[in-house]
Amino acid sequence: MNSTRTSYRSYVTPGDIASVQRLVSATGFFSVDERDIASELVADRLTQGPTCGYEFLFADGDIGLDGYACYGLIPCTAASYDLYWIAVDPGSQGTGLGRRLLEETERRIRVLGGTAIYAETSGRAQYASTRAFYEKCGYAIGAVFPDFYAAGDDKVVFVKRLGGELRT
Amino acid sequence: MNSTRTSYRSYVTPGDIASVQRLVSATGFFSVDERDIASELVADRLTQGPTCGYEFLFADGDIGLDGYACYGLIPCTAASYDLYWIAVDPGSQGTGLGRRLLEETERRIRVLGGTAIYAETSGRAQYASTRAFYEKCGYAIGAVFPDFYAAGDDKVVFVKRLGGELRT
Repeated sequence: MNSTRTSYRSYVTPGDIASVQRLVSATGFFSVDERDIASELVADRLTQGPTCGYEFLFADGDIGLDGYACYGLIPCTAASYDLYWIAVDPGSQGTGLGRRLLEETERRIRVLGGTAIYAETSGRAQYASTRAFYEKCGYAIGAVFPDFYAAGDDKVVFVKRLGGELRT
Repeated sequence: MNSTRTSYRSYVTPGDIASVQRLVSATGFFSVDERDIASELVADRLTQGPTCGYEFLFADGDIGLDGYACYGLIPCTAASYDLYWIAVDPGSQGTGLGRRLLEETERRIRVLGGTAIYAETSGRAQYASTRAFYEKCGYAIGAVFPDFYAAGDDKVVFVKRLGGELRT
């Protein structure tokens, strides 16, 4: 859904459940299970409100959802945020939208008092572009868990510190 | 609740909600938030059954719950398990119950086809005995996330591989 303009919104509408499912499928980067989880988080937010712990940032284009991010304070932490999801429609990839979405997400997390953002992805070759994206955006590898997702499929945890008094 | 004998059970009863809350509080190792989460997992299991993803192992003594473990397959993984909770009543600490509970949990995870167990704890001085416990039980530090829980309060992720064809 390549669009000439993008507007951000943080409120969630019922139509976002299907839009997120469609967008996440279209990327080709997520399993059916992951796609269902992505849309369930949207549904949770609609039924439970902010108490569910999931915040959203939607990038609406001219004809539909161009991309979105889902993030939230990690339970039992003071100020650590998890980037649960970030995805850009294939028609909008290569336009810098992913980076703009991530930067806007970081800005909002800073406003909420967040001191660090964690993002998990796979170590498989298919996700090389995802890992390169995080590195380009200032994220560092905080941990690698071999064979976490499956044999030969590591989990890579990226971390970005948002300043303040944290140790390095 | 120091007992002369221990019996294990995996089924959950409504009384376990209060028993787990009391036990977790008594250890002095968990915050009020964590205590509430611990008992919520028990309640989730009662209302949702196995689909909630939380398995339990209770060690019943003569006069009540002596200890318990809560574990489950990590969503979106093929065979990685999370040890969400393990706690032993102060009256039963030093008896080897924690180790026996953990070994029985590992045995059950193997039966379920699990290939690795992950356990998270704090890097604070108060948790030195917890970290020593995992190391004594064959767990290795897989990652340390500085200031994860709060400034000065790291997250330490322990990992134990359960054999098979995993890379080291």
